[in-house]
Amino acid sequence: MPRVLFQPYQIEAEISPDETVIDLAMKLGIHINASCGGIGVCNKCKVFLESGEAKGEKIEDIYYKACTLYPVTDIVVRIPVESHFDRKALLRKTRAQALERKETLSLDPPIKKVYLELTPPDIEENTPDLERLLSALSEKEFEITEVPYSLLRSLPHVLREADFKVTVTLFKHARGYRLIDLEAGYTLERNLAVAMDLGTTTLQLELLDLNSGETLAYTSDYNPQISYGEDVISRIEFARKKDGLKLLAERVKERSLLLMEELLKEAGRKISEINLFSIAGNTVMTHLFLELEPRFLREYPYVPVAKNYPLLRAKDLGLPLKEESVVLFSPSVASYVGGDITAGVLASLMAQEEQLTLFIDLGTNGEIVVGNRDFLMCAACSAGPAFEGGGIKCGMRATSGAIESVNIDPQTYEPMFLTIGRKKAKGICGSGIISLMASLLRVGLIDKAGKYRRDLKHPRLREGDEGYEYILVFKEDSATGADIVFTENDIENLIRAKGAMFAGYQILLESVGLSINELERVFLAGTFGSYIDLEDAITIGLLPDLPRDRFYFLGNTSLQGAKKVVLYTHKREELMRITQMMTHVELSNHPKYMDYYMAALFLPHTDESLFPSLSQRG
Amino acid sequence: MPRVLFQPYQIEAEISPDETVIDLAMKLGIHINASCGGIGVCNKCKVFLESGEAKGEKIEDIYYKACTLYPVTDIVVRIPVESHFDRKALLRKTRAQALERKETLSLDPPIKKVYLELTPPDIEENTPDLERLLSALSEKEFEITEVPYSLLRSLPHVLREADFKVTVTLFKHARGYRLIDLEAGYTLERNLAVAMDLGTTTLQLELLDLNSGETLAYTSDYNPQISYGEDVISRIEFARKKDGLKLLAERVKERSLLLMEELLKEAGRKISEINLFSIAGNTVMTHLFLELEPRFLREYPYVPVAKNYPLLRAKDLGLPLKEESVVLFSPSVASYVGGDITAGVLASLMAQEEQLTLFIDLGTNGEIVVGNRDFLMCAACSAGPAFEGGGIKCGMRATSGAIESVNIDPQTYEPMFLTIGRKKAKGICGSGIISLMASLLRVGLIDKAGKYRRDLKHPRLREGDEGYEYILVFKEDSATGADIVFTENDIENLIRAKGAMFAGYQILLESVGLSINELERVFLAGTFGSYIDLEDAITIGLLPDLPRDRFYFLGNTSLQGAKKVVLYTHKREELMRITQMMTHVELSNHPKYMDYYMAALFLPHTDESLFPSLSQRG
Repeated sequence: MPRVLFQPYQIEAEISPDETVIDLAMKLGIHINASCGGIGVCNKCKVFLESGEAKGEKIEDIYYKACTLYPVTDIVVRIPVESHFDRKALLRKTRAQALERKETLSLDPPIKKVYLELTPPDIEENTPDLERLLSALSEKEFEITEVPYSLLRSLPHVLREADFKVTVTLFKHARGYRLIDLEAGYTLERNLAVAMDLGTTTLQLELLDLNSGETLAYTSDYNPQISYGEDVISRIEFARKKDGLKLLAERVKERSLLLMEELLKEAGRKISEINLFSIAGNTVMTHLFLELEPRFLREYPYVPVAKNYPLLRAKDLGLPLKEESVVLFSPSVASYVGGDITAGVLASLMAQEEQLTLFIDLGTNGEIVVGNRDFLMCAACSAGPAFEGGGIKCGMRATSGAIESVNIDPQTYEPMFLTIGRKKAKGICGSGIISLMASLLRVGLIDKAGKYRRDLKHPRLREGDEGYEYILVFKEDSATGADIVFTENDIENLIRAKGAMFAGYQILLESVGLSINELERVFLAGTFGSYIDLEDAITIGLLPDLPRDRFYFLGNTSLQGAKKVVLYTHKREELMRITQMMTHVELSNHPKYMDYYMAALFLPHTDESLFPSLSQRG
Repeated sequence: MPRVLFQPYQIEAEISPDETVIDLAMKLGIHINASCGGIGVCNKCKVFLESGEAKGEKIEDIYYKACTLYPVTDIVVRIPVESHFDRKALLRKTRAQALERKETLSLDPPIKKVYLELTPPDIEENTPDLERLLSALSEKEFEITEVPYSLLRSLPHVLREADFKVTVTLFKHARGYRLIDLEAGYTLERNLAVAMDLGTTTLQLELLDLNSGETLAYTSDYNPQISYGEDVISRIEFARKKDGLKLLAERVKERSLLLMEELLKEAGRKISEINLFSIAGNTVMTHLFLELEPRFLREYPYVPVAKNYPLLRAKDLGLPLKEESVVLFSPSVASYVGGDITAGVLASLMAQEEQLTLFIDLGTNGEIVVGNRDFLMCAACSAGPAFEGGGIKCGMRATSGAIESVNIDPQTYEPMFLTIGRKKAKGICGSGIISLMASLLRVGLIDKAGKYRRDLKHPRLREGDEGYEYILVFKEDSATGADIVFTENDIENLIRAKGAMFAGYQILLESVGLSINELERVFLAGTFGSYIDLEDAITIGLLPDLPRDRFYFLGNTSLQGAKKVVLYTHKREELMRITQMMTHVELSNHPKYMDYYMAALFLPHTDESLFPSLSQRG
């Protein structure tokens, strides 16, 4: 990969083929003016190519637009004086390291297919069909404890169709095997499973080949329940309407199936090959999928219908898979700590390791788990949807046109920002919001209480309808035709949200006599965790101020956990053990919670000693 | 009870209040002419009342009709000389003793109802509903291994409806308990089960209270599948038609339900109180009820779909009981040794005792079991339906108007007979046929090969369309307006049937190195067994010639077995053990079967040493 040397700062780094010079600059914290989000129209991101070869659009004859510039060889670029640069900001861009938790396990799915060549009956030995089958299985050490009625009915025909050569599909549960399918002839090669992360916003599915353990296809789409309510609370409300619950369940099942068909099409496989469907979702989503009454999840004292969901068959749920195909749901711990978290902890391996780990899943709510192989404490922080852009004036989901990264020049207070898909800016998504707030704080445009400087006159600072605000994108440059602003109200919401998270870390740790400094690792789950900038998140006090090499982002651990259960039989037991181990702390009910929360309503915190690296940098 | 002394024979016996003098005479083997079947119209059964008081219809001023005569006090009756009497016949009427197999077991049904007052959740302890319930059950030592989805869906509502005071219904299986119902409040008193004998001809049902073990109601009716075929073979044939199997299954399920409703009405109970339905039937009937392919039961090499049927829920079978109510089927051993026999052996206790026992169930086919607590051998004898009146010219089922008992005067060859319900004779049922054949043999009207005397001129003996025959009822006296006859063809059919049975006893015994003389007990199952006259059955060689006190009739052991399973949990395991123990011998395939069978085609047998008591009497 070619290298880029930024002058006059003498900062050099490798650049990947799909990155432009402005992407790399943003990553390195080097400020280049860019007010169009990197789409190549504002003409402000000009750089001078001092040496090397590169492709890009020229401007004013001698400059290149950094947002169009792809190096061909190593290059040296000089950033004109118009783009100021704060040397210290270079320390302020750190991504958590990706951590793929790969274990060296041999593939051992709970679905076993066994090919049998049975001896056909004769008058000397006319054992009934079922017992003939069971005894052949018993010889191979498969003890069958459950035989479904539907299989009994097709049994004599299937056996005779293929002259007593058949393939059986078995599902291993705690006490033996359940017979789930019987096919004429040899069909060992057909053995699929689907793993799904059942999210409030999106469904993510993988199609897995249980013979190889490989992922054959991946897809995702919105959870169609969104049309009936964006967050879990509004969906619980919708479920109270007549047939509301049924409708919600049907919609999400339909969409899952459509996505499954998409996966099958991509892989060139058939729906009849799917033997297992493993689902991990939060407690509300799981209730809604299962058409279980969600009302009491929301009503005091917040009681789910179940923690461990029974093993279901496709036909129980009206899913048009083979009727005995097994549907597994990841167990919940509490109303707001669900199967996505238990599956996530499973995938993270934290419950098998010694290191004291803080697991954070930041979505609509923030769920956190502290522990290691000896104990697990968990809680849901009522962070609200601020980190997904909810409750923020110009907030939006992390889709095309969302501002995902911001840097503000400390002298000019001009922003540099990038949008997802490099489109005209529509609004600001979670990572952009954190980045923006951290920048505002660093350049001193807001104080530690989250208030804008009242003394400064600047075209981007003004008193709007909702109080003071910073104009990130002027309406001329936005996709919406309106200014994209960040208000003091927005900041207040964010401070509350991050305060709830931070107080949560403290309560959980304190409840086992530990403190933040003792954390050996911080795991960030979810796609959010992979976009967040560590320095920014620590700067505003959302993440604890620990050595940066203790932070890891793990990706979609809910989906990873759902997959593990499908690929390794013992992982289901491990998942049960995790669920059993997890002690849930009801934060709102904790006597010290309010104190910790109030103390955290400051940037980064009222107790500066908790953020030593920030005070050092001052 | 008053006593009756019959003169001139000096035979005296007690008479029960519902018996007439002719009933008693028939029981004692005392011949009184009676050609109307005991309905009081032939005026031939006249007796002279010598002393005592009795009520009845007079005839010729000084006589009474014996068929109308009910003693009030002890009486002496004299039988006029017209009614001859063979003294030896007195030895020839022996009923097997009834044997009620009552054990001293404490009631322990596999259904347990448990009333729970759960602590309602609060914010300190907001365990999910399901785990709250399961942990309360676990405290009472009920470990739940299965929770049905439907219950999960109603769980939160039921719990809250009754302020967390609920009654759960559990079904015990091998590995723990299955949760099958949840009701608000205290409902321990509602716990019913139904036991059913699923017969080819009749369904017999009992409604049981699982709290007391008492039978609340009993009913029976024809198996409506009769309309599609009288015997198992014709029903298997019908099942091959399009939707034939479905239709057969639906008909019998409908009828079962109607009968169940009748039981519930009689007992004043509700269908929702039924938690368990235990069914014992032969292999074909069980296949048809379960809509399992019956074809291969009949086709060589005669393979049932299953020996052990899985535990089913009412909803699996589309039965409109509570959907999780358990339906149990008694296991089969082979195509023609079914759940009626395994349940029968269970009820007979023979598999728990030391005495070598021969168990005989004589219905459409004859199923036999030989063994004791150490071993069990079984076989189906292809006796055909002769003992139910099938394949016999004037044969009929044992219903109103069927001749059930016959005695022939050794001098006049005139018959005395009684009909069921004391109606005009319509035909001859099984016990009548055996009785008639034994009488014909005793008085010498047929020889040991089953042929009528050709030398005798008698108005009741003639050569008809189908060869020689005995006219039991002249058309003037029959309900059908036709002569009721017994042909040589009929006799041949009967000889074949009894020969198949006898050869079966011999093969089974020989296969374990035993002989008929070593039998310590003979158990006669089914209603047939309670009507059969031992002397008659031994005379024709249907039953072995053993001391009469070794014979017992047990009644409907299939129904009794189905009941035991419902009342005592461990009986289901015992039933499994019995089924496992039972070694099935395919008679038609046994190398010696044909020899034994041929040797038995004689009255009583070609080997007279096998019937010593008959040769003694000469």
